[in-house]
Parts: sequence; C-alpha cells; structure tokens
Amino acid sequence: MRMATKEKQEKQEKAKAAAVQLKVPKGTRDWTGADSIIRDSIFQTVTDVFRRHGAVALDTPVFELKEVLAGKYGEDSRLIYDLADQGGELCALRYDLTVPFARWLAMNKVQQFRRYHIAKVYRRDQPAVARGRMREFYQCDFDIAGQYDRMIPDAEILRVVHEVFAALQQDIVVKLNHRQILDGIFAVSGVPDDKIRTISSAVDKLDKLPWAEVRKEMVEEKGLAEVVADQIGDYVKHSGDIATVVALLRADARLAADPNIQQGVADMELLATYLDAFGVPSSQISFDLSLCRGLDYYTGLIFEVIVRPTAEEAEEASAQDRKKSKSKSKAAEEPQVGSIAAGGRYDNLVGMYGKTQIPCVGISFGVDRIFTILKARREKEAGRQRVRETDVYVMAFGAGAGFTGLLTERMRIARRLWDAGIKAEFVAKTKPRLPQQFKAAEDVPLGVILGEDELAQGQVRLKMLGTGAAGEADEKDRGQLVAEEDLAAEIKKLLI
Amino acid sequence: MRMATKEKQEKQEKAKAAAVQLKVPKGTRDWTGADSIIRDSIFQTVTDVFRRHGAVALDTPVFELKEVLAGKYGEDSRLIYDLADQGGELCALRYDLTVPFARWLAMNKVQQFRRYHIAKVYRRDQPAVARGRMREFYQCDFDIAGQYDRMIPDAEILRVVHEVFAALQQDIVVKLNHRQILDGIFAVSGVPDDKIRTISSAVDKLDKLPWAEVRKEMVEEKGLAEVVADQIGDYVKHSGDIATVVALLRADARLAADPNIQQGVADMELLATYLDAFGVPSSQISFDLSLCRGLDYYTGLIFEVIVRPTAEEAEEASAQDRKKSKSKSKAAEEPQVGSIAAGGRYDNLVGMYGKTQIPCVGISFGVDRIFTILKARREKEAGRQRVRETDVYVMAFGAGAGFTGLLTERMRIARRLWDAGIKAEFVAKTKPRLPQQFKAAEDVPLGVILGEDELAQGQVRLKMLGTGAAGEADEKDRGQLVAEEDLAAEIKKLLI
Repeated sequence: MRMATKEKQEKQEKAKAAAVQLKVPKGTRDWTGADSIIRDSIFQTVTDVFRRHGAVALDTPVFELKEVLAGKYGEDSRLIYDLADQGGELCALRYDLTVPFARWLAMNKVQQFRRYHIAKVYRRDQPAVARGRMREFYQCDFDIAGQYDRMIPDAEILRVVHEVFAALQQDIVVKLNHRQILDGIFAVSGVPDDKIRTISSAVDKLDKLPWAEVRKEMVEEKGLAEVVADQIGDYVKHSGDIATVVALLRADARLAADPNIQQGVADMELLATYLDAFGVPSSQISFDLSLCRGLDYYTGLIFEVIVRPTAEEAEEASAQDRKKSKSKSKAAEEPQVGSIAAGGRYDNLVGMYGKTQIPCVGISFGVDRIFTILKARREKEAGRQRVRETDVYVMAFGAGAGFTGLLTERMRIARRLWDAGIKAEFVAKTKPRLPQQFKAAEDVPLGVILGEDELAQGQVRLKMLGTGAAGEADEKDRGQLVAEEDLAAEIKKLLI
Repeated sequence: MRMATKEKQEKQEKAKAAAVQLKVPKGTRDWTGADSIIRDSIFQTVTDVFRRHGAVALDTPVFELKEVLAGKYGEDSRLIYDLADQGGELCALRYDLTVPFARWLAMNKVQQFRRYHIAKVYRRDQPAVARGRMREFYQCDFDIAGQYDRMIPDAEILRVVHEVFAALQQDIVVKLNHRQILDGIFAVSGVPDDKIRTISSAVDKLDKLPWAEVRKEMVEEKGLAEVVADQIGDYVKHSGDIATVVALLRADARLAADPNIQQGVADMELLATYLDAFGVPSSQISFDLSLCRGLDYYTGLIFEVIVRPTAEEAEEASAQDRKKSKSKSKAAEEPQVGSIAAGGRYDNLVGMYGKTQIPCVGISFGVDRIFTILKARREKEAGRQRVRETDVYVMAFGAGAGFTGLLTERMRIARRLWDAGIKAEFVAKTKPRLPQQFKAAEDVPLGVILGEDELAQGQVRLKMLGTGAAGEADEKDRGQLVAEEDLAAEIKKLLI
C-alpha cells in the first residue's frame, strides 16, 4: 500500500513538472481588447501634445550595456534586470527612458534635441497590480536637451503636462521643488555632505510615510543628529503656491543667505512668470519642500503630478496634517495613489558619458497608472465597448441540401470591399448556417447578404445590423438590394 | 624604466575601464529622425491592412517564463536571450510573437481570435546590419486562430500579404510549400522518421547554399544515405505555379500514393481557387518544394515572401540554376536578400500548453528588412526629409541695447497657437538674435514675428519662411500684419 501511494505521488509530481505554467511573469501583463484601445488613446493624446511642441521620436534598444546603466539610479540600482551572461557583452534591461536618451545624446554628440519616446521599462520591484505598479510598464517621455536660458524649457515641460492632462480631462496638481533648494535646506540644517543623498531618499518617502517614521529612519538608520532631523522636518513641511513658499524661504535669514537657495529661489520666481505667460493655472501648482525624487541624476527643478484629491480626500489629508507631529498617522495604512507623471532637470547626466555637458529637462508620464484611472472612469460612464473595427460582415443566405455556401462569392465580395479600403469579414466556413453568421457579426454595424438569385442579377442585399439581441429579427429583414458594383460606394455613404 | 612603463600601462588600463563604452549592444540600434518616420509609415500601412481584416491588437510582455519558450524553436533555441537568475522566476526574452500568442490563447481559453502584434523580438544570432539582420528587430504579426474550414484563413493571410505589399509598392513573390507534402517527400525518399526535422533544416538552407553543400550536410553530418539525399534533391528542385507543381506531384506514382501528399495537394488546389477569388495574382505565387522554414511548430501551409528579382537578377539566378549540379555556385559568395515576410499554419502549438487544440495560421512581416528596401528607394527619389512637424516658429524682432527679447510675449503667442492645436516653437533664450531664430526655424514653413510696435497695436507679422538658404532675405521681408486674435485662424488657412 505504502509503495503504491509513493508511486502515485511520484507520478503526480512528474506530471506537474511536465505541465507548463500558463502565466505571464510576475508583475507583467497582456494587453488586448478594450484595455488596448484605452491605452492607445492615451498614447495618441500624449504623442499629439509632444509633437505640437516640436518633439521627434527616438526609439532605443530594450537593453543597454550594463556599464551604461551603472551608477545612475542610486539605491534603486538593485531593481535593474540583468540579461544572463551567454558570452559577449553584459547587458541589462532599461530602467527608464532618460538614461538611454542621455547615452544617445553623448554618443551622437547632439547639442540640442526635443525627443519623445514611448516604450516599456523594467524594474524588479514588488508589484502592486491594483495600484498600477508593474515590473514591466510603459513610460511616455518628453525631454528638451540643450543650452538655453534658465527655466524656459522647464516651464514648457510643465505646459506640456498641463496640455496632456487637459486633453485627458484629468484634474491634477503638479508638486514642484528644486534640488538646489533642498541642498540648501540640508546644508543649513546641518546634514553632513556625504549624507545628503541618503537623507534626501528618506525625505522622499514623506508622501507614503508619516513624519515620525521618516525621522526614525534618519536618526536610527542613517545616524543623523536628532536636532538636525527636526530642523529638516520643520522646513520641509511647507508647501503652497510659488510666491508663498518663496516668501517663506526669504524670511528665514539662514536659508536666505545660502547660495544654493538663492539660485533656487531665483529659478522658482522666473518659473512663476513663465507659467503665467504659458497659461498654466497657478491652482495646478504646489511648491512642496518635501518633494525629493529618488533618482540621483536630478540637479534643478523636480516635479511630480498627482490626481487632485476630491474635497473629501483633501479634508481627510488636512486632518492628518494637523496630526502629523503625533507618532502614527492614518497615512501609513492608507497609501495615496502614486504620481501619474514625474520628472525634472538633469544637467550632468550626459556629461557622465562624454566630454560635453548637455543640460536637459524632461517629463515621464506613467501610462499604466493613467490607464487605471481612465478605465475606472469609462466603466462608470459607458456600456460595452467595441474591440474590433470591422464595419461589414459578408454573409450567405440559404440552407438545406441545395445550399452551396457561396464561399468564393463571399470571398469575391470581401475582396471588393477590401480593395475599397473597407473593413470586412466573413465566416471562414464553406457552408455556414445563418445564425452562426449573425452571431459572428454581433458587434459589426453592416451586413452584406448574398443569395443565389440576387447574385444572378449582379445584386446583393445591404442591411444595418441590429445590436446583438436583434439577431432573430435580422434574419427576417434582408435589407435593401444594391448592385454589386455600387456596393462599396453605398457602404461608404452609410459609414460616414 | 621598466617599472615606469608598467605603471603607465596600468594607468591606461584603469582609465580605459573607467570610461563607459558609448555604444548600443551588438546587433541593436537606435531609431530616430527620417528613419523613424519611414518605419512608422510601415507600421501604419500594415496596421491599416490588419484592421481591415478584423484584427485586434494584442501586446504581451517582452519576456516570458523560460518554460513557455522551451521546445518550440528546434535548433534555434540556442539563440534565445535568457534573463539573469536574480531570484524568482526564470525568464527569457521572446524569440518571436507567435509563441506568446499561443500561450495567450491557451491561458485565456480563447477559441477564435484574429490578432495583430507589432513589437520587437530578440535573437542571439550573428548580426548582419547591412542586410537588415539584427539581434533586436521588429516583427509585425497577423494570425487567425480558430476551427475553420480548410485553407480559407490561409488564403486570407496571403491576401493580407498582397494588400500590404501593394500598399508599400513592393513587387513580391510568395514562395509556398506544405509541411505534409514535405513529410511525404521525405518518407517516399526514404528518410527515417527520426531524421525528418533535421533533414528539413538542411533543405531549408537551399536558398542560401548550393545543392552540393546541402547534400554534403545531409550525408556527412546527418548520416543520410547518398541515394536518399539524391532522391530528395530530385524532388525539391521543382517550383512553379500551383497547378504545375500539383500536376508534377500527381504524375509521380509513389508520391501520389502517399496520404500526406494527397492531403497537401488537395489543400494546395483549394488554395489556388481561394486566391483567385481574393484577387491575389498567380504571378505573385511560386509553389516551391525546397521551402521548408526552420521552425518546428508548422504543420501545414508554409510561406516566405521575397522581393521579386529584377530582370538582371533573374537572368543571373537562372544561369546559376543551370550550374546547380556543379560543385560550387556563385550563390555561396552572393547571398540573396532574405525573406521580408514569412509564416504558415501551426495547428498543434496551442495544444502544447493546454488541453484544447486551436488551429492557427499567421504571417510575420520583417519590418527592418522592408525598411532597408524602402529607405534605399526614398534616398533615390527625394531630397532632405523633414524630421519634425513644427509648423510655426515664433520670433522676436529687434537688436541692440533697447531690445527686450519679448520672451513672455513669445510665450503668450506660442500658448495661443498650442491652445488652437498648432505645432509651434520658439528659441528658449531671453534675448535671441534674429539670425539664430531663423536658423532654428530652418525646416519650419511659417514664422510669426513679434515687434514692440506691432504688439502695442495688438498685431503680429505672419510670414512664409524660405527654404533654408533664404535666411538673409527672410530677415528683410517681415510678412503680413495680422491681429493677434486672428492669428491661429490665419495660420490654419495657410496650413491646409
């Protein structure tokens, strides 16, 4: 008995090993049907805006030499996907579209360029599918490279953000900060130079963690003096419109004396002027001193775009703000929706590859998160969405022993429609039954119905198809007679 | 001295290690500018045709679980790129778009689907960039999955091929064969069952190697009897229109008696009828018994599309044919252009993943090779191609001490144009010189020129820009006066 059980177990295990796991890799997904259509509409919207601002497409390989990616992402480097060493060069999947762009600029010695790039990037992060955080996900990037006067391209990038989300009918807030202002705050607070990046990473978590936990990380994990941490906490809690926060920075004598802060404040004031000229409403802008952005390569303006909280959410958040100094706020349990676009200025990245520095500023739109929001909205609004675009279904009428199926005739008519650029299908069976044909045509607006008698007269029947349920009625009403040679023209009239 | 030299060497080596190699991985490339535009036009053409035939987009992850790809590609499996084992699932980059489609069908238990997929695939092959053979390259696939009557979807796939290359104005030949006919030929010739796939791989090389070399591979490497190899050689040399080759197969008593050949011949006759109904010219079709296709998964019709040789090339090829029996033909030194599209029927692939067999037939267009051909043609035809789409350049007129640069005014005008959906740029400098602005506007058709006086009247100047060299003249003729509020409308009139 025991032996038999063991044998059975072994057999089961073998069968299990042989069966291929039918899944996609963790943190990835397939896209098709209505989801594809929503996503393509996002691509189209952002591409239109990018091109309106003079951008040219750039497409780079999905993997780069490992050394090209090395040292660009700080603590996040551990999330890079490596290719196996199968002989030859060592490569890794791209982590973003910014570093490949910098590599391309340096490699081709390009001095000025406005590029857009829509492609997938790869991060070995913990996936959170419901919140739209994946290991493979699309980014849509627009960047302006070149030596220009301060803050002019930066302002245009924010104008691009404004146009994209206006077109997508999203109510947004752009959180802004400036790396030089952050550096000034850290210096004035007393952070040692060699701790600035790691403390910056800690502050960056303030949108997900309460202050108490971030402070703990600074003091206990990163060895910052408590008084320094508290001074940082006091500074970075401020946010508001550009003028208000600039006034705050000016009012603090120690900050106002710092040369980094002086430069940053001058930049932010220029930016406010330019955003006004570009018609970007100040209600969309929040100068937020706690915004840090994780990546190493930013040098100036940084920004993140979030969906504007509803009135209720805002009320709750402000309640939390009032409790912020207390040990644990509700924010820890209820993570906010992440940013839907982000970017900033990176003036030194290109110089890491070549002799020439090329200042750059850019934005990356997180398509998967935008998709998650738009999909939820569409599901509220509308019923079933068409997933194929077929306009005409070509069918044969008939049944019984004498029914030939009219296959080559259906083919000939389909060919006539394709030749005219009309989207047409027919059932790929020699003798399809009529209900089968109507079922296959379910979401198609027009039907062309062939019968022996009509064909003998050079005619076919053209008919508007019902919406799914009307199949039965459809079978009785066979539509209007049309001469075969007029068919394409008649259909085009109906499709307008 | 020796020490100093050694130190120097070490220093050089260190410097070498520190400098990042500025290149893309072997066999990959960046795409931008005019190349991007040509490639996008190919994508648009094939997408239009695919949708005309009822296809729906499917997008799958760039990597799959390794076990999903295992055992699908025969000898070519060694060309698969693996991801490094960094913990978690073992994955590999997709090798084609067909296997991911089969995995998706099985995973989602889809019974019928027409899908298209345009994406990059990865092969660790020896790259030949000039011939368009890359390690990362785009495929454009269209496949019909579902239980249908014989050869109807197969014929539609060939109709799709016809439409795509008609739209791309390419003169093509579609080489056809049938796996069951090949199997019959191998069986009748006396190839042992376990050698059929490997002998098939050898025959597949006949478009690149002369017969003598293929024969040598069969006999010396693969241990086939000489008489068997010669019999195969005698059969597979035939090609021509479907009716001619079918007649040949019927005329050979041993072949005509083989059940695989009988099925294959019946299929090819049906196909000829359907291609006629679909209006695919028989001049585009060549039934070629030497066509094998390397991949394991094909089960029925297989095909490859090549550019039709010019009269000269055809003459040369036929001269080679006459010499074919001799030891070494010219073909070995002068490889022909490879196929620009290929595909076939694969009825058992989906069943490898699940319980249900779903018959499929499909085509894959090799965009990079088509690109290489179209680019060469465009370079012959036309001069410089625009790479950005900007329609209007907004400039400030003025110079000297009193010149303010009119930056926020240029911003305001650009904003007005963007709001109207017009593609506009301006120089991102506070006080740009006029020649600098005209240079930046080089390939832009319209200029809007701002001056203090005109702006005070609510007016600007609108002017057609010269074609590059006319910069000097441009600076003198400042164009027509237009009221600011009429500007967008006036521009739209000019852009039609």
